[in-house]
Amino acid sequence: MTNILFAAGGFRWGQFEAPLRAALAEAGLQADLSLEHAPDETDYIIYAPNKHFIDFAPYGRVKLVQSLWAGVENIVTDATLTQPLARMVDEGLSEGMVEWVTGHVLRHHLGMDRHIVNPGHEWVFDPAPLARTRNVGVLGLGALGAACAQALAALNFNVLGWSRSLKAVDGVACFAGDEGLREIVSRSSILVLLLPLTGATENLLNAERLGWMPKGAVIVNPGRGPLIDDDALLAALESGQIAQATLDVFREEPLPQGHPFWAHPGVTVTPHIASETRPETASRVAAQNIARVERGEPPLYLVDRQTGY
Amino acid sequence: MTNILFAAGGFRWGQFEAPLRAALAEAGLQADLSLEHAPDETDYIIYAPNKHFIDFAPYGRVKLVQSLWAGVENIVTDATLTQPLARMVDEGLSEGMVEWVTGHVLRHHLGMDRHIVNPGHEWVFDPAPLARTRNVGVLGLGALGAACAQALAALNFNVLGWSRSLKAVDGVACFAGDEGLREIVSRSSILVLLLPLTGATENLLNAERLGWMPKGAVIVNPGRGPLIDDDALLAALESGQIAQATLDVFREEPLPQGHPFWAHPGVTVTPHIASETRPETASRVAAQNIARVERGEPPLYLVDRQTGY
Repeated sequence: MTNILFAAGGFRWGQFEAPLRAALAEAGLQADLSLEHAPDETDYIIYAPNKHFIDFAPYGRVKLVQSLWAGVENIVTDATLTQPLARMVDEGLSEGMVEWVTGHVLRHHLGMDRHIVNPGHEWVFDPAPLARTRNVGVLGLGALGAACAQALAALNFNVLGWSRSLKAVDGVACFAGDEGLREIVSRSSILVLLLPLTGATENLLNAERLGWMPKGAVIVNPGRGPLIDDDALLAALESGQIAQATLDVFREEPLPQGHPFWAHPGVTVTPHIASETRPETASRVAAQNIARVERGEPPLYLVDRQTGY
Repeated sequence: MTNILFAAGGFRWGQFEAPLRAALAEAGLQADLSLEHAPDETDYIIYAPNKHFIDFAPYGRVKLVQSLWAGVENIVTDATLTQPLARMVDEGLSEGMVEWVTGHVLRHHLGMDRHIVNPGHEWVFDPAPLARTRNVGVLGLGALGAACAQALAALNFNVLGWSRSLKAVDGVACFAGDEGLREIVSRSSILVLLLPLTGATENLLNAERLGWMPKGAVIVNPGRGPLIDDDALLAALESGQIAQATLDVFREEPLPQGHPFWAHPGVTVTPHIASETRPETASRVAAQNIARVERGEPPLYLVDRQTGY
């Protein structure tokens, strides 16, 4: 019997218990999945940060901590966690993200807002240029960024992608490093942020780099709030350097009432809905990863504790 | 020398003259393209309906009338036109239409409007379902409808397509005939209209068929205004049977000030911008079609004067 601790908050148990049990059975595991296991009897932990602090130190027997979320910036800094940590790579998460990103990029590309909100009932013939003439930059080419970049390329956008180390993505012009960052930011009239949050990416989009963008550019951030220097973005929106920003993630969530993003006419706030881990698909990923370790194979999606993702 | 009359309105000459001359040269034609040719010296007419009525009768030598637009409902009824008539099938037109349709379908799918217009600054965690669980119907599987249906299927929507006679489109569940129409309308939570306007399609979406739709469905019409019975749509919006309609085309354009569509909170009006013939790509199509006829081959995209498209 394999003892699996569900340490992702009791309020998520209702969503995840049934799909996890089904996925564990499907993976051929004799598992005891529970909200409570003694530390020295626990083999695996399915984890998401929540209000109840976990001290991982007593869980010496644990072979894998499987995160329920794709972003692990709140986990990697936990000094008590010395066990192997795997990120979630969920096709449901990726599908939802592709839909949100392509939808909002098309919205900005087509200039939809002036028709959705048109109190003067103005009829102005203003067809959008074709997507093939529009440069869209995607910062971050992990599972989510690469999927979004490819979906945008399939819609004929001229897609530029950037990652810390150079990657190859079909149909996407790929850049890396500081020079590459300057080039992609300078050329993108719509810029999508899908980087992990690390020491190296915090405030990546600061005043200097916002200034590199073509005047009137658009920012779309479904990645992590602190990738952007909020004050620099507000200043760039005031000056017209940035025309619009659609933000799904924030330094503090829910975004506090009174935060200037709420009232700024150039900012669209979405409530961290760009995508979410879907219980059915994520449970299958978690169960398959545990089954791999039980068979003696290395787990997938291991987090590199140095780079932080 | 081949004499080609540009009869699409003098105001379009500025847009089309240069790309047409370039495309005719590229097609290897020795052509005299002009706004004026004597009827008995004219070999081809490049045509779009405009304020100046054309009597086609004296143009007995004309081998082809090439429409600049995809929709020819205002041309086929012209009794003086006995010459062969070709529709425009322009890849620029198709690309623009795919962008507008996928953009607005994603907008409705994701429920974007409640975030774009959110005066109460409400943070409500309400992620959209995945596209794979969403039925999107496309009425009309011509060049534009088929391209849109395939782009939506590539975004994981569950796409149903309908045409008068049964067609096969990769990744799309195809229906035809009256029974098929009832099935697709009954199952689609978002319905896109891309049918040609003919006697058989006028008021296709009437009160009865709007009543077949799932409650709270969405209509997206980039096709032709008279495909919908306006009063029936307004009644369905009032009752909540239809939640939202995004309309790009109308019985009268510009949509008159005071028309109830302008003020209805469930209706988004876009000013016939879903797509437009692009001078560069359309000029190439027109020139290639004329070159075919000059070589003795049948023209492409001939309009069937019986069906009207």
